[in-house]
Amino acid sequence: MRVVGTFAEVRHNGRGPVGLVPTMGYLHEGHLSHVHAARQAGDGTVVMSLFVNPLQFGPDEDLARYPRDLDRDRTLAEDAGVDVLFAPELEEMYPTRPNTRVEVGGPATALEARSRPGHFAGMATVVTKLFAGIRPDRAYFGRKDAQQLAVIRRLTADLSFPVEIVGGPIIRHADGLALSSRNVCLSAGDRIAAAGLCRGLMAAADAAEAGERHGPALEALVRAALMAKPGVHVDYVELASADRVERLVELDRPAFLAVAARVGAVRLIDNIHLDPVGNTADGKFVADRGVRLDRASVMDAGGR
Amino acid sequence: MRVVGTFAEVRHNGRGPVGLVPTMGYLHEGHLSHVHAARQAGDGTVVMSLFVNPLQFGPDEDLARYPRDLDRDRTLAEDAGVDVLFAPELEEMYPTRPNTRVEVGGPATALEARSRPGHFAGMATVVTKLFAGIRPDRAYFGRKDAQQLAVIRRLTADLSFPVEIVGGPIIRHADGLALSSRNVCLSAGDRIAAAGLCRGLMAAADAAEAGERHGPALEALVRAALMAKPGVHVDYVELASADRVERLVELDRPAFLAVAARVGAVRLIDNIHLDPVGNTADGKFVADRGVRLDRASVMDAGGR
Repeated sequence: MRVVGTFAEVRHNGRGPVGLVPTMGYLHEGHLSHVHAARQAGDGTVVMSLFVNPLQFGPDEDLARYPRDLDRDRTLAEDAGVDVLFAPELEEMYPTRPNTRVEVGGPATALEARSRPGHFAGMATVVTKLFAGIRPDRAYFGRKDAQQLAVIRRLTADLSFPVEIVGGPIIRHADGLALSSRNVCLSAGDRIAAAGLCRGLMAAADAAEAGERHGPALEALVRAALMAKPGVHVDYVELASADRVERLVELDRPAFLAVAARVGAVRLIDNIHLDPVGNTADGKFVADRGVRLDRASVMDAGGR
Repeated sequence: MRVVGTFAEVRHNGRGPVGLVPTMGYLHEGHLSHVHAARQAGDGTVVMSLFVNPLQFGPDEDLARYPRDLDRDRTLAEDAGVDVLFAPELEEMYPTRPNTRVEVGGPATALEARSRPGHFAGMATVVTKLFAGIRPDRAYFGRKDAQQLAVIRRLTADLSFPVEIVGGPIIRHADGLALSSRNVCLSAGDRIAAAGLCRGLMAAADAAEAGERHGPALEALVRAALMAKPGVHVDYVELASADRVERLVELDRPAFLAVAARVGAVRLIDNIHLDPVGNTADGKFVADRGVRLDRASVMDAGGR
């Protein structure tokens, strides 16, 4: 595996179809699953980018305490089969104060946008830079950031990037908590409370698969699992269409049920995707509950 | 020469360094000079795009009457040595209503931005699409659109596109009028009045080369040449820095002196670039007056 710091080196080292796995580092099995997917898809070169992008953090957010550990990430990336690890300094990404911003409307205006103004423009701008500077053939993103995935699909089509966007399943701890680099900031007590997000979503997944199609009823199941949990503050629970991220009162198309909550000092998000089975008119939906690890996560090994 | 309608075909036909000449069609020697420059630079494939981009026209602008003639352009492009002519339909460029906009601040906030709100975002978005979808190594733009050139340089750096931006000189008719596709919309009388823009700029070029460094004095020379011309309405005359497009009271760095005026029903722009010779402290500047045709232009042959 080569570790490089410039876009030019990444391009120079790309052979065959290039698969890109963009990350902010502090890797877990969610990120690593994309590397395996890229290998399976036949990408000739798997590039992982590792950059904590200041543009996508608000002034009151956790940029300063976002976990970072390049040595740890380097080992995990190499073991997973990354060919090129692109870990740029701030100067490579923003040699001068940037004047250019990629603004996405539509799917970038709901849910997270309300709680994190400017987040999607910052994310869209850096993803555009990665696509422009690396010229990948495929790029891998997690379904955990369901809205981000919708925004990136929209941006990729709108800007005519010839990049296939691949969405990977959510990877969960054995107790259901979705893997996130931010989980290392949870206290032991908050860690237990945080598993409530998944429990609520699984209850809603059961209901949706049993035929419940009323959005508010599905949302209520998630809220119920989090109610009266000390230290858990729900930001939103919402059923939204998968492509446009518009609130759905009736589950009648591909959708995701999303939850965002502050648990202790950490803001967590999670969701289940709900996809119609066969003809939508049949009203049958199947839930993507993600993948549960049957072993300890690399996040459990040591932590900070 | 191949004429293609999709980004995928353009990429499929690119060999060696790809040079891109973006145009809105109705070609003249300004556009064709970029093709020659690309040939001289050693580009393996010269791609010319031809698309009248609705996003960069305001609601009261001349989108509907912008001149179009694909057969004429095809012949001129082929004769000039274009390898691939990319003439997409609206459906290829905007298959769905786009949600994504590339917004440039800094150099895109002065001069034209005041008269044409939304113009630069529309232009920046379509140029981003061309760079994303074609993946050129070099791209050629005219110095006539001096501010556009500054905005594109900014956007290219900010978005990490590995594209070298080449600015070509202004090509002028024998009487000095800068070539523009819009010139075909000038009446015979307006055509004569329009040459005043160039005459004013040349007077200012003489003054600058003789040592005049006061911005307002240079601007006054351009205004004087246009004053009392019937049918000519000056929009702005301004000395601006070449990279940031900030107004200069003192000519002390690379700059351009720009004029915009409505002549009859047509809005025209023109400029001279002023570049320091040797050490800026010497105060010597040389004007780029463009290139005058010593023959009739392809714009004179027939018209519409």
